[in-house]
Amino acid sequence: MLKLTSTTDPLWIGRALANMDDILLDHAHCEKKAASTALSLIFRYPDRPALLLPLSRLAREELSHFELVLDHLERRGLKFVRQKPSPYAGKLMSIVRPLEPARLLDTLLCCALIEARSCERMKLLSEHLEDPELSDLYRGLLAVEARHNTTYLELAREYFSQGELTERFHVVATHEASILREAPDVPRLHN
Amino acid sequence: MLKLTSTTDPLWIGRALANMDDILLDHAHCEKKAASTALSLIFRYPDRPALLLPLSRLAREELSHFELVLDHLERRGLKFVRQKPSPYAGKLMSIVRPLEPARLLDTLLCCALIEARSCERMKLLSEHLEDPELSDLYRGLLAVEARHNTTYLELAREYFSQGELTERFHVVATHEASILREAPDVPRLHN
Repeated sequence: MLKLTSTTDPLWIGRALANMDDILLDHAHCEKKAASTALSLIFRYPDRPALLLPLSRLAREELSHFELVLDHLERRGLKFVRQKPSPYAGKLMSIVRPLEPARLLDTLLCCALIEARSCERMKLLSEHLEDPELSDLYRGLLAVEARHNTTYLELAREYFSQGELTERFHVVATHEASILREAPDVPRLHN
Repeated sequence: MLKLTSTTDPLWIGRALANMDDILLDHAHCEKKAASTALSLIFRYPDRPALLLPLSRLAREELSHFELVLDHLERRGLKFVRQKPSPYAGKLMSIVRPLEPARLLDTLLCCALIEARSCERMKLLSEHLEDPELSDLYRGLLAVEARHNTTYLELAREYFSQGELTERFHVVATHEASILREAPDVPRLHN
């Protein structure tokens, strides 16, 4: 269903488990960024009514997750601080074409792929983490991330034909997989 | 409790009631902007931990209100479209001093005043609107706006002394009242 064109390198989960403090901090930043991206789309496309309610609800869910991850950071005695982000999202979004409506289609597909990759990685975390609290956290979140993936694809379907969507999805998904192959060796959710 | 240094011009409510379509559309934009402002503060001050949870919750509530007002627009057969905003918030924020930590104090006080003025005007709307659905909408919302006013003041108290806060609040509140005296004659929530 998630239609990623690659599966995560088996080395990723070991690196993540050995650096869960970094992963959790990155995760909090990612949820905040996901809320901000959804909200920025509402600002950019007030004339696309089908986007408004789903993206507002999605932004609220991302903020709930942000609060949830902040709580887990606090339980581990960690502070929420600035952190050098993974170049993943920036590199992924570099494929977005500048002119509308291509810009909208590409942005929705990039968002769908980010959610899909998050879901794949959260599943790995939920299966491999020995800490039951963290394992439960990721098991709970991955279902919502999968739903967010669907939301972004459904929004793309509102405004673009299935043919156009499928063709472009293949290009963006291939780009996404290539970014991960070249990702730097630092512990992040999307590295 | 709201500590505004002026009460709304009695002419405002008549103009608002005669232009409820404009007011509702402006209101939807204001809720979206309020969510965006709260989120932007989380991005700007990751190193101020006391801000994070309250502002994330506040942003979620503003998004819920955005969705609620969108629903009322739809019930009235109105579309959510771009609208020239009131110059109020921009003019209010022009008092924010550029250097930290003054910038944080001033921004929190401006946000508190916007919430206070929203609350005052929503009370007027709830008391004067004859449409029971709209009257109920504003009665429900004004309590939350009052709570948001308190939230912003409490956040300011976390990082600034009571003396510093009181002195600057007086300056910003006086500025807020002066902006409203010179506001253009167009139907907006903050005009």
